[in-house]
Amino acid sequence: MPRRTSEKDREKVVKDETTRQAVISRALKIASAQGLAGLTIGRLARDLKMSKSGLFAHFRSKEALELATIERAREVFANEVLLPAEDGPEGIERVWHLCDRWLQQVEEQTFPGSYFFTGAIFLCARESGTVADTIRTATREWFVVLKRAVEQAQDQKEIEQEAGAEQTAIGLNGLLLGAQWGHLLGNDDSLKEARASVLRKLHSVATKKTPPRAFKSVRAFRSYLKDRDN
Amino acid sequence: MPRRTSEKDREKVVKDETTRQAVISRALKIASAQGLAGLTIGRLARDLKMSKSGLFAHFRSKEALELATIERAREVFANEVLLPAEDGPEGIERVWHLCDRWLQQVEEQTFPGSYFFTGAIFLCARESGTVADTIRTATREWFVVLKRAVEQAQDQKEIEQEAGAEQTAIGLNGLLLGAQWGHLLGNDDSLKEARASVLRKLHSVATKKTPPRAFKSVRAFRSYLKDRDN
Repeated sequence: MPRRTSEKDREKVVKDETTRQAVISRALKIASAQGLAGLTIGRLARDLKMSKSGLFAHFRSKEALELATIERAREVFANEVLLPAEDGPEGIERVWHLCDRWLQQVEEQTFPGSYFFTGAIFLCARESGTVADTIRTATREWFVVLKRAVEQAQDQKEIEQEAGAEQTAIGLNGLLLGAQWGHLLGNDDSLKEARASVLRKLHSVATKKTPPRAFKSVRAFRSYLKDRDN
Repeated sequence: MPRRTSEKDREKVVKDETTRQAVISRALKIASAQGLAGLTIGRLARDLKMSKSGLFAHFRSKEALELATIERAREVFANEVLLPAEDGPEGIERVWHLCDRWLQQVEEQTFPGSYFFTGAIFLCARESGTVADTIRTATREWFVVLKRAVEQAQDQKEIEQEAGAEQTAIGLNGLLLGAQWGHLLGNDDSLKEARASVLRKLHSVATKKTPPRAFKSVRAFRSYLKDRDN
């Protein structure tokens, strides 16, 4: 008998976790498109055909649900953008990869909307509280990774020291945001053009030292180097 | 007696309009900071010490209130950014003025938050309905004015024809968005640096023809031209 209870317990744990993950997945979809304000327990319960009390058993508060949703969004962003770029070598190539992956997650609609992590910071920057803090942290995470990649490229003498790492990162990020903005307003070429703009920007801050391994990299980066060396 | 009634009527009309404007002003503050989702009739009634039914007398629905709030935001944006820039002459100078005024409205916190008109489009771009349509229209309005200014500068041979007007406008807007983003993440120089970036961008698309009247213009533009002519 004890064995059976214990098996049931394990089954319950697995089932609870499965439900929890399903709730977060749905929450991510809603919040990506409409922001956290669009994420209500009532709406989620309706979407998932669950009772509100059933939902509350998994997330004791709206805030706990919001934090779990942001956490999931961070994981997705890290898996789709940060980690693949960090798999490759340091230097100007990594800066390129980060920007390229960022554009790719927009193209692939990794988040089915533009709240994570674009709209979010514009909405919560001046707000206080744990949720706003977590969004700030997640947004800053991207910025820190991008800035560090620029600094590493400077250490490797691939980007000029005079180009401030922080302003270079802000500038690159601006190209990405601007492209997403254009894309949202219906400009079909905006994301493709953004890659050309990123390459021009990298071109403007690059030293004369060419990283040879970059030639093995993505096509756009190869053409950038070709363009630079002509 | 009829005279007195009519006077009362007039008073009521004036009072109603005053209340309506006060409600919209408050709504604009809330929505600028937290988005339209943060704008509830209950919250507004509490803030303004009015009854919910009193509020409903002025705005028959949440949507009517939202639309009036966006309309006010458009007026403010037009008065602070679009009209002052359009007062000046056409050409590359107007492009500069539009970008400069845009940065100024961020510096001066014309909107006490970043929903109008930055966060808004990232949140509603894929939504349907009148509210989302109105936000798209308002956002596009800015884009169309900026793009037209670039085209006019091309007509006057101040910006190279090869620089696509649409992509130039998207690029300039990206510099502004990126600067606001950096500013929100705590970079103090981000808005000032953005002016330098806008000038560099204009420099990169400008023809050799110098618009002499531009010398009478803002300081940053003078230094841009000085820099270019050296």
